[in-house]
Amino acid sequence: MALIGPSLMCADMGILKETVIRLDEAGVDFFHLDVMDGSFVPNFTLGPDLIKSIRSYTSKPFDVHLMVKHPENHLDLFAEAGADMISVHAEATEHLQRTLQSIRKKGLKAGIALNPSTPIAHLRYVLDTVDYITLMTVNPGFAGQKFIPLMYQKVKDLKDLIDGNGYKIDIQVDGNIGYETIPGVLENGATMLVCGTSSLFRPELTFEEAVERLNHFIRQFEAEQLHVKL
Amino acid sequence: MALIGPSLMCADMGILKETVIRLDEAGVDFFHLDVMDGSFVPNFTLGPDLIKSIRSYTSKPFDVHLMVKHPENHLDLFAEAGADMISVHAEATEHLQRTLQSIRKKGLKAGIALNPSTPIAHLRYVLDTVDYITLMTVNPGFAGQKFIPLMYQKVKDLKDLIDGNGYKIDIQVDGNIGYETIPGVLENGATMLVCGTSSLFRPELTFEEAVERLNHFIRQFEAEQLHVKL
Amino acid sequence: MALIGPSLMCADMGILKETVIRLDEAGVDFFHLDVMDGSFVPNFTLGPDLIKSIRSYTSKPFDVHLMVKHPENHLDLFAEAGADMISVHAEATEHLQRTLQSIRKKGLKAGIALNPSTPIAHLRYVLDTVDYITLMTVNPGFAGQKFIPLMYQKVKDLKDLIDGNGYKIDIQVDGNIGYETIPGVLENGATMLVCGTSSLFRPELTFEEAVERLNHFIRQFEAEQLHVKL
Amino acid sequence: MALIGPSLMCADMGILKETVIRLDEAGVDFFHLDVMDGSFVPNFTLGPDLIKSIRSYTSKPFDVHLMVKHPENHLDLFAEAGADMISVHAEATEHLQRTLQSIRKKGLKAGIALNPSTPIAHLRYVLDTVDYITLMTVNPGFAGQKFIPLMYQKVKDLKDLIDGNGYKIDIQVDGNIGYETIPGVLENGATMLVCGTSSLFRPELTFEEAVERLNHFIRQFEAEQLHVKL
Amino acid sequence: MALIGPSLMCADMGILKETVIRLDEAGVDFFHLDVMDGSFVPNFTLGPDLIKSIRSYTSKPFDVHLMVKHPENHLDLFAEAGADMISVHAEATEHLQRTLQSIRKKGLKAGIALNPSTPIAHLRYVLDTVDYITLMTVNPGFAGQKFIPLMYQKVKDLKDLIDGNGYKIDIQVDGNIGYETIPGVLENGATMLVCGTSSLFRPELTFEEAVERLNHFIRQFEAEQLHVKL
Amino acid sequence: MALIGPSLMCADMGILKETVIRLDEAGVDFFHLDVMDGSFVPNFTLGPDLIKSIRSYTSKPFDVHLMVKHPENHLDLFAEAGADMISVHAEATEHLQRTLQSIRKKGLKAGIALNPSTPIAHLRYVLDTVDYITLMTVNPGFAGQKFIPLMYQKVKDLKDLIDGNGYKIDIQVDGNIGYETIPGVLENGATMLVCGTSSLFRPELTFEEAVERLNHFIRQFEAEQLHVKL
Repeated sequence: MALIGPSLMCADMGILKETVIRLDEAGVDFFHLDVMDGSFVPNFTLGPDLIKSIRSYTSKPFDVHLMVKHPENHLDLFAEAGADMISVHAEATEHLQRTLQSIRKKGLKAGIALNPSTPIAHLRYVLDTVDYITLMTVNPGFAGQKFIPLMYQKVKDLKDLIDGNGYKIDIQVDGNIGYETIPGVLENGATMLVCGTSSLFRPELTFEEAVERLNHFIRQFEAEQLHVKL
Repeated sequence: MALIGPSLMCADMGILKETVIRLDEAGVDFFHLDVMDGSFVPNFTLGPDLIKSIRSYTSKPFDVHLMVKHPENHLDLFAEAGADMISVHAEATEHLQRTLQSIRKKGLKAGIALNPSTPIAHLRYVLDTVDYITLMTVNPGFAGQKFIPLMYQKVKDLKDLIDGNGYKIDIQVDGNIGYETIPGVLENGATMLVCGTSSLFRPELTFEEAVERLNHFIRQFEAEQLHVKL
Repeated sequence: MALIGPSLMCADMGILKETVIRLDEAGVDFFHLDVMDGSFVPNFTLGPDLIKSIRSYTSKPFDVHLMVKHPENHLDLFAEAGADMISVHAEATEHLQRTLQSIRKKGLKAGIALNPSTPIAHLRYVLDTVDYITLMTVNPGFAGQKFIPLMYQKVKDLKDLIDGNGYKIDIQVDGNIGYETIPGVLENGATMLVCGTSSLFRPELTFEEAVERLNHFIRQFEAEQLHVKL
Repeated sequence: MALIGPSLMCADMGILKETVIRLDEAGVDFFHLDVMDGSFVPNFTLGPDLIKSIRSYTSKPFDVHLMVKHPENHLDLFAEAGADMISVHAEATEHLQRTLQSIRKKGLKAGIALNPSTPIAHLRYVLDTVDYITLMTVNPGFAGQKFIPLMYQKVKDLKDLIDGNGYKIDIQVDGNIGYETIPGVLENGATMLVCGTSSLFRPELTFEEAVERLNHFIRQFEAEQLHVKL
Repeated sequence: MALIGPSLMCADMGILKETVIRLDEAGVDFFHLDVMDGSFVPNFTLGPDLIKSIRSYTSKPFDVHLMVKHPENHLDLFAEAGADMISVHAEATEHLQRTLQSIRKKGLKAGIALNPSTPIAHLRYVLDTVDYITLMTVNPGFAGQKFIPLMYQKVKDLKDLIDGNGYKIDIQVDGNIGYETIPGVLENGATMLVCGTSSLFRPELTFEEAVERLNHFIRQFEAEQLHVKL
Repeated sequence: MALIGPSLMCADMGILKETVIRLDEAGVDFFHLDVMDGSFVPNFTLGPDLIKSIRSYTSKPFDVHLMVKHPENHLDLFAEAGADMISVHAEATEHLQRTLQSIRKKGLKAGIALNPSTPIAHLRYVLDTVDYITLMTVNPGFAGQKFIPLMYQKVKDLKDLIDGNGYKIDIQVDGNIGYETIPGVLENGATMLVCGTSSLFRPELTFEEAVERLNHFIRQFEAEQLHVKL
């Protein structure tokens, strides 16, 4: 079943400890943490100290998404802070292979993130060095944007590239992932969903309700899909 | 009397709401928030969303210290998030005067921060456009470093520059400000103290105790100093 | 019929008003304005004030070609100056989709320009967000260079990419577009011709003569081509 | 007597030839041409081709003010286009001495421009390699800004630095130079005035009237000043 | 037969003259010289003066591999120092076509180098302007790294791209090229081998022995391959 | 007595081992090694591997002069390669104090280098963290340039700054240091001379002769100077 992970960028940053504990208990599969540098993306969010502060409240994986230039210079900071997975942008480094290798050498899962316009050709010669690929389905930098429709096709193309070369790599989608867009991304091959204001962080629901409803929706959709195939 | 402000970089980021409320009640004068971009300084901390999350829990001024390149590009983000004061590094922009002007036009206090080695000559022609000057007394980027002794002299030189030209500008010191260093910086002219692990964030004290003890120490020192002068 | 637009970079900058009026009357379809930053390309040309100065002398579209790094930071300047179309280089921004979206939100046509060596793979996931694509057929930065022969193939490949995915997008060619190269680019799919010293700006012809001759040539060639296909 | 030069950035760019001819006849002493790169300053203006287009209409010196990063890379372009004087920003290059030397080797006058906040200490060890120093009296990048009052003091300090070391170097002021600010800058030592919308480019006056009025004002002020000293 | 060239980065830099003479006599086909800038790759190696110092000791081609940002700015330095071939990284310039053209205009062979992850799509529209393509088979910057297995496939894909478009271009491989990896790269289409510590620079062999053994190995492998095909 | 050190940039790079051994025996006091990055200065020279290659042939100090941007990122490379002293340019880092501290923590002497135009004000607040200061007396990047006369004054001003604040710091001069310029720099306070083509590397002299002649000249000049003072 597809995994779901809250984007902590959408959380109330005043009560992160409580938020992490409640999301963990509600059954999320991983935590997604966006790091921004004001240059690769025009915003700032959080850093290693914040990650350390909440690390002990859950044993679920911390997926650190580095939306920063030259991510190779900052891997140690986030590995030491408690990351289990680190993704870097293909557009942000000339040394993607080395950066992925470095992440793996620290014992972490290595991911590549792609901006909406970036072609998947960039992935061809690192398919053996990557554990998950994050397709940005909105432009990175801010919460609350609209899903870009052509990204359904991109998920499909990526799935074909991975399968066609015989690899097993998770496809993560990040940006406006909610009830309207989940069927489309699942259908095309996504296996990890970064969930923000469109699904998990909804004022009218507790985290328990939001997670349950979301998981139920995914299970049902996946069952139907399976049925269709049979 | 010299003002004291906790450096939120040193706080437990999991319980910021509670921390801000308790520090406010304990009587701090302002809150100091360090923003880092991984490029001007090799670390990341927090951004506008975090500031918004805690803005409503206190009416004390939020002093946002931008340790980022080209701070002029990011002023709106932090003004909208609730900053009352914004300081930018003289080393980070070729357009210091314009940047200060822009901060003031938003109705905020404008500050200049200087790295330890940066000469105070950079301040001469913006003395009429600046409300406070932050002297870094350690190298910026990480908590827990040692005070650089030559910075006492720099506080003094800055005080002389300001007084000599007939201005009234606050001198803020930032970095390892505790019981050992406070006498020296006060003596030389500091009026705002950014307080971190050396003074306010001490595991053995409540925030109430830490603030009271610190204020008592400052009052006593200032009284003695006054006495000496008389 | 293919549209023709003078590259104002090739005009006599001392008499731009007169030049624009005469080119407008002679029947050009659009005006092409190259903006350079000395960094993305090693030259400088013109800016928003120049565009404003001549905006009122024609109602033909102003096509502003930003040969600058981080074009996303400068869109407002050119929109306010009177641009109808803005093209940005795929090599100049990590956020191509967002940049195109921003141009469209201002009510302008959004274009992507590609340097000669840049692969068209960069276009795949923004085909729904782009109105025209400018293929540089010489290296950008200076007038008077030679057409790069492999660019005929590139026009064809781009045409195939666009048609193959069911889009309707103009293909603009820019660089040494004259009587020798026009047949080749038209044949392969170009629909907008940026015309400089090789065609419109010829000392021996008035603008009226130059435009008429060029349009006649294009009409005839297109008619023949149509005939061949039938 | 102080020299006056129109800032062509303030001219009607559609009729530059005519403008240059009329300003030349009206008796300006030099032409000031601002080049911007969108990075050192957030705007774009003109380049070498424009300069070439108007070079033949006057024999007055062309003073090219490079508001660009790494000006050392662009000197050839502007020397060949017809510059007689080139000024570069001290904030824009780590190799100020070499850049000035290079300008002089081309047979041109070499200038240094300083942003409002930049200290004059940067000039100490190039006083023997510089022909004129441009003090920005507004922040560079746009016309129509207000004179920064502390710049009177800066003109004076610069005059003292030059005289105190026994050099003869022109002091140029650039930004909101008009009838209100001219007395102050002349009094403190300025010898070259860059004149824009505040003085020469006024819709209600012909260039002849504007130049005459301005020169009359300057002569009278200088005469009075001389009188005071005697 | 495939050409072999020692990577001088692996040589004893204290006795370069002697090393070059002995390698020349031993029968290497070219000399490979890596230039690094500390920014495109995190190391520094050698420059034009070193190349000049050893230029006269051999008439074999000097193949200068520029692992530097903006290589277009440095071509003159290396052409004058004695380079016969210059390769630049596709990731290091936005103007690949112009850079290759410039190298050829100096009468030198022009090469493109690709980092391990860089897609070969970048080469499509410069196939007519390039003489050799260097595939990095380790991450650039340091000697002694392990061959990346997916690079065999990349050599093959590149060979197919070149052949499929009817070009004749040398394929150079650089990084951990030794007895274990040579069969794989030859089989897939490599024609120039950059040889370092894995093959030519072995303490237990003289250069004569190392070159002879290597050439013997290559000849034998190529003969077998030819046999298989027949 | 003033110390002399050959600039290895001026040596024959083909026979460095022999050169180092002979210069060591001839009695030089230290070896000066210039590292360039093509960006801070427009040239490239040598790197850590070259330093390692010659490290064992002398026990004299290796003084590594980093003419590179962000030298803080490269200290480890050169410390491990065998540097005893490392100097960094004040213009190349925003974190001069931290960089000097880092050099000292590695057990090396820490130096600051200044380009000709850079004011000595940059040194005021690191005088307690620096072991030697290198004044460039020509523009950095190439051998064979002319001494800039104003640099005599700069040596004197620096000497006054150091003495006036009660420090003991070596003053190194680098650039066209020969028989014509040595009296002037010694007189004004220089204590370390970087010697290149103007003094030590002269084709008509052996290294032994060149060193002896130079030391003799310096001793005599210093004796006379002493005499004058008495």
